[in-house]
Amino acid sequence: MANQSSIPVVVNGAAGKMGREVVKAIASTPDLNLVAAVDLNPNVLGKDAGEVAGCGTLEVPILNDLQSSLLLATQEKQLGVMVDFTHPDKIYDNVRSAIAYGIRPVVGTTGLSPEQIQDLAAFADKASVGCLIIPNFSIGMVLLQQAAIQASKYFDHVEIIELHHNQKADAPSGTAIQTAELLSELGKNFNPPSVTETEHLAGARGSLTSEGIRIHSIRLPGLIAHQEVIFGAPGQIYTLRHDTSDRSCYMPGVILSVRKVLELQSLVYGLEKIL
Amino acid sequence: MANQSSIPVVVNGAAGKMGREVVKAIASTPDLNLVAAVDLNPNVLGKDAGEVAGCGTLEVPILNDLQSSLLLATQEKQLGVMVDFTHPDKIYDNVRSAIAYGIRPVVGTTGLSPEQIQDLAAFADKASVGCLIIPNFSIGMVLLQQAAIQASKYFDHVEIIELHHNQKADAPSGTAIQTAELLSELGKNFNPPSVTETEHLAGARGSLTSEGIRIHSIRLPGLIAHQEVIFGAPGQIYTLRHDTSDRSCYMPGVILSVRKVLELQSLVYGLEKIL
Amino acid sequence: MANQSSIPVVVNGAAGKMGREVVKAIASTPDLNLVAAVDLNPNVLGKDAGEVAGCGTLEVPILNDLQSSLLLATQEKQLGVMVDFTHPDKIYDNVRSAIAYGIRPVVGTTGLSPEQIQDLAAFADKASVGCLIIPNFSIGMVLLQQAAIQASKYFDHVEIIELHHNQKADAPSGTAIQTAELLSELGKNFNPPSVTETEHLAGARGSLTSEGIRIHSIRLPGLIAHQEVIFGAPGQIYTLRHDTSDRSCYMPGVILSVRKVLELQSLVYGLEKIL
Amino acid sequence: MANQSSIPVVVNGAAGKMGREVVKAIASTPDLNLVAAVDLNPNVLGKDAGEVAGCGTLEVPILNDLQSSLLLATQEKQLGVMVDFTHPDKIYDNVRSAIAYGIRPVVGTTGLSPEQIQDLAAFADKASVGCLIIPNFSIGMVLLQQAAIQASKYFDHVEIIELHHNQKADAPSGTAIQTAELLSELGKNFNPPSVTETEHLAGARGSLTSEGIRIHSIRLPGLIAHQEVIFGAPGQIYTLRHDTSDRSCYMPGVILSVRKVLELQSLVYGLEKIL
Repeated sequence: MANQSSIPVVVNGAAGKMGREVVKAIASTPDLNLVAAVDLNPNVLGKDAGEVAGCGTLEVPILNDLQSSLLLATQEKQLGVMVDFTHPDKIYDNVRSAIAYGIRPVVGTTGLSPEQIQDLAAFADKASVGCLIIPNFSIGMVLLQQAAIQASKYFDHVEIIELHHNQKADAPSGTAIQTAELLSELGKNFNPPSVTETEHLAGARGSLTSEGIRIHSIRLPGLIAHQEVIFGAPGQIYTLRHDTSDRSCYMPGVILSVRKVLELQSLVYGLEKIL
Repeated sequence: MANQSSIPVVVNGAAGKMGREVVKAIASTPDLNLVAAVDLNPNVLGKDAGEVAGCGTLEVPILNDLQSSLLLATQEKQLGVMVDFTHPDKIYDNVRSAIAYGIRPVVGTTGLSPEQIQDLAAFADKASVGCLIIPNFSIGMVLLQQAAIQASKYFDHVEIIELHHNQKADAPSGTAIQTAELLSELGKNFNPPSVTETEHLAGARGSLTSEGIRIHSIRLPGLIAHQEVIFGAPGQIYTLRHDTSDRSCYMPGVILSVRKVLELQSLVYGLEKIL
Repeated sequence: MANQSSIPVVVNGAAGKMGREVVKAIASTPDLNLVAAVDLNPNVLGKDAGEVAGCGTLEVPILNDLQSSLLLATQEKQLGVMVDFTHPDKIYDNVRSAIAYGIRPVVGTTGLSPEQIQDLAAFADKASVGCLIIPNFSIGMVLLQQAAIQASKYFDHVEIIELHHNQKADAPSGTAIQTAELLSELGKNFNPPSVTETEHLAGARGSLTSEGIRIHSIRLPGLIAHQEVIFGAPGQIYTLRHDTSDRSCYMPGVILSVRKVLELQSLVYGLEKIL
Repeated sequence: MANQSSIPVVVNGAAGKMGREVVKAIASTPDLNLVAAVDLNPNVLGKDAGEVAGCGTLEVPILNDLQSSLLLATQEKQLGVMVDFTHPDKIYDNVRSAIAYGIRPVVGTTGLSPEQIQDLAAFADKASVGCLIIPNFSIGMVLLQQAAIQASKYFDHVEIIELHHNQKADAPSGTAIQTAELLSELGKNFNPPSVTETEHLAGARGSLTSEGIRIHSIRLPGLIAHQEVIFGAPGQIYTLRHDTSDRSCYMPGVILSVRKVLELQSLVYGLEKIL
């Protein structure tokens, strides 16, 4: 698997739900080479990352020390990449460490503040090291959002429905809010009313974002993760829908990011920037 | 068109949106015979009901006097029917008049109070005259509601989405509320929570009926009238959806009601009772 | 878990995909008690059925001998049930064995010929032992089919779309064909044409069943198992849709069948008969 | 309505279904001015174009002579536009006439051969007169097709479902075929099979275009005109859907075309070129 020209990758958070998917995806991608796997969960310390991920032995033991894992990656012929799916309170330090070692971070962990991102951007810039922060690795969702931005130039009316399993505690979903924010960047006043609306039951018309867009959140067992953006105009409806059924859907975005971060010399935010 | 055995029908409100559809539907149904058309709109007085409806001359002038129209219907060999799409404040008197003449009312006008319905039921009963009050003539919607009642016995989780054009002022729609009420008749406690939910934007989770069912109302130009009932359970989703694109969808229900009311000897409420 | 009044269950095919789900479902259902697990796969012989299913130790070792497993079930205070998810060429003998021991079979394995079913029915009848053969344990799908039968009385036009992952080799799906067959039992001539249709590309209008119903089969990665029945009439569309995302959706049907088979004294075919 | 700076428009085919919509749309758009209306239907000769369109008197009588109508348009201060919704066998001559008068054609009529289009392009080029040929004025459909082209770069699997009323005789729809052709322009080999498929009923898997894309055509009363493009990849589905409910949906595209054709100096084909 590990040929001379393959990209050495460190997976940080290798025993988590996303981390295990990433380990599997790297193992089945010829030009990527898992050189180290890190996780702070004591139950997996020393176990084989492939076995923990359920894809057979990879002869990469899970370590609990990021520094030495990064060091391993620096000893390869090719520039290395760190894929990070850990915790909000660790991610800032993880990115700084990786950049210090010249290892390119691909960050899936969410929770960095705008100030932290700005700070890391300055740090990456100074080191001329590429860094990708990707809040959503789903290429399908990014395509939906890009198509919605295009449509919003010609349609004045739009509503969003997002549907998730009933284990999800917060509403609306972060991704639906992000879609509404992206549509608002045109500075358009959406959904000019044609009648005075009355809610006989509070909440019927959903939540109203500052952009004038309404988001409706459905929660049911049997649902997984779905988003629908519905544009309307006289005589027509244009609907964009994305359905996610499992985490494998994020892997094409992770693989693309690993390859692309090596071409960058600064911090880039969002998968849409590299599509 | 008017053979000996056809059913004589009086259309009350013949120049309104629904009335004109009813006139057209009667004109194209061999066993029904339009004997009189009534409307209080002065602009159509004396005009031919068929021409006003856009289906060619029927040689039935529009009158503004219900009494003499009902009298006309009593002169036919067969028992007569009055189809009423007028106004909430006229309908009680209209039904009493029709029953007094022995003409069977089929009422599409909404707005009768429970007391008025009870009173009319007693009146119809005493006269042994059939009477149908049908808040929704859409056979498709009644089928959806019946199927939803069946499903609610086996599914514990359900949400409703109703979508209408943005000229509709009230939310949720009356039909969606009715669906929720029908599901509640089982006495079931729907949607037991599995997590504590948080709304970051008020209204995200829609409106909550007393039955514990959430209704979400979408309003966009380009939409017409749509209802979706979504049932969820681990590993599966079962969806019932009804889309209405024009008033012609109500005509099979009207025709069925005209035929069925002649078999009744008391007041019956709801299309589901005669399906 | 195993109280005095719980139903003793033998799972045959306990290490297969469905068998493992059944083991998990029984383990989490208080009134059911897994007394034996059988599988012919040599790799799991002697292993704990719960561990193989991924739900923790149940202290039920997997055996490769159905006879002795059935015998175990006969030693409980309550009447026993065998749930069978094995192979088409084993199922006939398995059912005969179970009935011979007085153990009620719940059969999810497909592939019995009509003659075999008739034969087993006679055998069950003679022994006054209940037996359930259930080709589809999905309560949602059965509800969809029942609702479709209701709708077909009032709608003359209907088409079916079924959507599955692109690993599925045959089209249309067996369940979609079954839905078409159920609709045909009314003896109705569906989809009377209103124009002469021309296919510019062969297959555009889907496959035509002997009932005059068209079935369209979509195959894409990312899909799981979905069926949509669309009824049309002037001005309205009524759609029934069922989405399956994982095998857990069949478990309520399996549990219901285990409980119901004890009330029967003959062979019953199809989940719809016991809903 | 007709101010000094408004664009003079001749509507050719003003009494047809699309023509009447165009007359209404022009009447309600302040910067456009209906200067002449032409139709060969003898029943409307001399009648007011606005009354025929159902939007009140516009004081523009319907003529049966295109030449003199074009002449009228040349007498305005601003450059004029001809909107043409006539017949395939007239359109070539209509466009030549308009260009000869310096009136810019916006052509909605379909049926020009590739040779005719090439010829008209040369003619427009020589005269430095803009000309738009627009097979589909639906902005929503063009947005769908553009979004589908974007998605096809990242998804390898796609199928198309198009749904129309059962008065439509041909299948698949021209627009669905066009979508498949647009996706093929990338030169990609779509839908590599992962299993050997078997059709138990011929046509189940729909029609196969030369691009390897399958199109499924549904025909039911109650449907109007709908297209769905479904992309699939492991763990995700991305769906684009366009629903048309009436001809008003084309008017934003017509209005945009009238304004844009004045900026052109040659023939341009397709709404997507001017979005």
